[in-house]
Amino acid sequence: MSAEQTKARILDAAFREFAEYGVAGARVDRIASSAGCNKNLIYVYFDSKEALFATVLDRHLSGVYAGVPFTPGDLPGYARRVFDHVQANPGVYRLLAWATLERTAALPLVRETEHDRKLPLIRAQQESGAINADAPPALVLMAILALATAWSPVFPFGETANPSAGLSPGEVRDTIGDMVARIVRQK
Amino acid sequence: MSAEQTKARILDAAFREFAEYGVAGARVDRIASSAGCNKNLIYVYFDSKEALFATVLDRHLSGVYAGVPFTPGDLPGYARRVFDHVQANPGVYRLLAWATLERTAALPLVRETEHDRKLPLIRAQQESGAINADAPPALVLMAILALATAWSPVFPFGETANPSAGLSPGEVRDTIGDMVARIVRQK
Repeated sequence: MSAEQTKARILDAAFREFAEYGVAGARVDRIASSAGCNKNLIYVYFDSKEALFATVLDRHLSGVYAGVPFTPGDLPGYARRVFDHVQANPGVYRLLAWATLERTAALPLVRETEHDRKLPLIRAQQESGAINADAPPALVLMAILALATAWSPVFPFGETANPSAGLSPGEVRDTIGDMVARIVRQK
Repeated sequence: MSAEQTKARILDAAFREFAEYGVAGARVDRIASSAGCNKNLIYVYFDSKEALFATVLDRHLSGVYAGVPFTPGDLPGYARRVFDHVQANPGVYRLLAWATLERTAALPLVRETEHDRKLPLIRAQQESGAINADAPPALVLMAILALATAWSPVFPFGETANPSAGLSPGEVRDTIGDMVARIVRQK
């Protein structure tokens, strides 16, 4: 197995381990066992458990940004696509939630860059009159992301709090899209 | 020190430990040390670390329900009060977030009872025409709670993602109240 293949196996195993247990709870020996490599090799390639987490989070967030294009002219549609992404890929949102709760790793630069890039695009929509300008762009984006991710096993106020709600994913997605439309609509 | 005093000290220390580290990361010996008691006494009084967590969460959630009355006739006001409560008491929301991510403890019955109690009250507002009936009550409540708690160090899409937004708590609270008003407003 080449070094690159070994690194890829370590990153896959680390993603599963961190998504399940967070940074503090993750065990490097479980990652090594799952990747089929020597534990020391993980430190050689990735330096520390914390640095490995940062690498894994950076890669998966980059996957989110590539897979869920931001559409400032269609914010309800963006919310619906984020919703679909969370349903299909809860692991990366679990990584984000762990990183926030554990306050361990600095969040990757890609997150700051991608997040901050969206704010002037929302501001431009407000200035053009396409959406209302009542809320600061940071709170518009926060609202979209909080709503689009809430109905997931990652956060406490959605399906976790309503285990017997009997709602289909499609119904939840459409309702969230409608809520975002109401939030950004002109009066 | 009486048994009741010792139990109270253990519960206080356990709340701080669980809020900071979650269930898996919490150490019973740190709780004992912080409470100034013997570690074995914790097992005598509370059986296990997991049972102690359930007790702590139940007590603090009951405090939330007592401290933040649900006002179905004023959902934006309810959202603003939840926001204020999170700002003043992030620890209990951290407990909820840990419990969700760790999937360890069953959530206390008080949560299910209090959550489910609110749903017919929202439904009644919809049926009276006071608020729109576009969304299932479970999603209306989810939206309120997700929005009201998002701007906190507990969740990843608020101040965590916008460390330099320069927004005052009052501005964020009012914006969130306005967003909830837009979500529930009749067309």
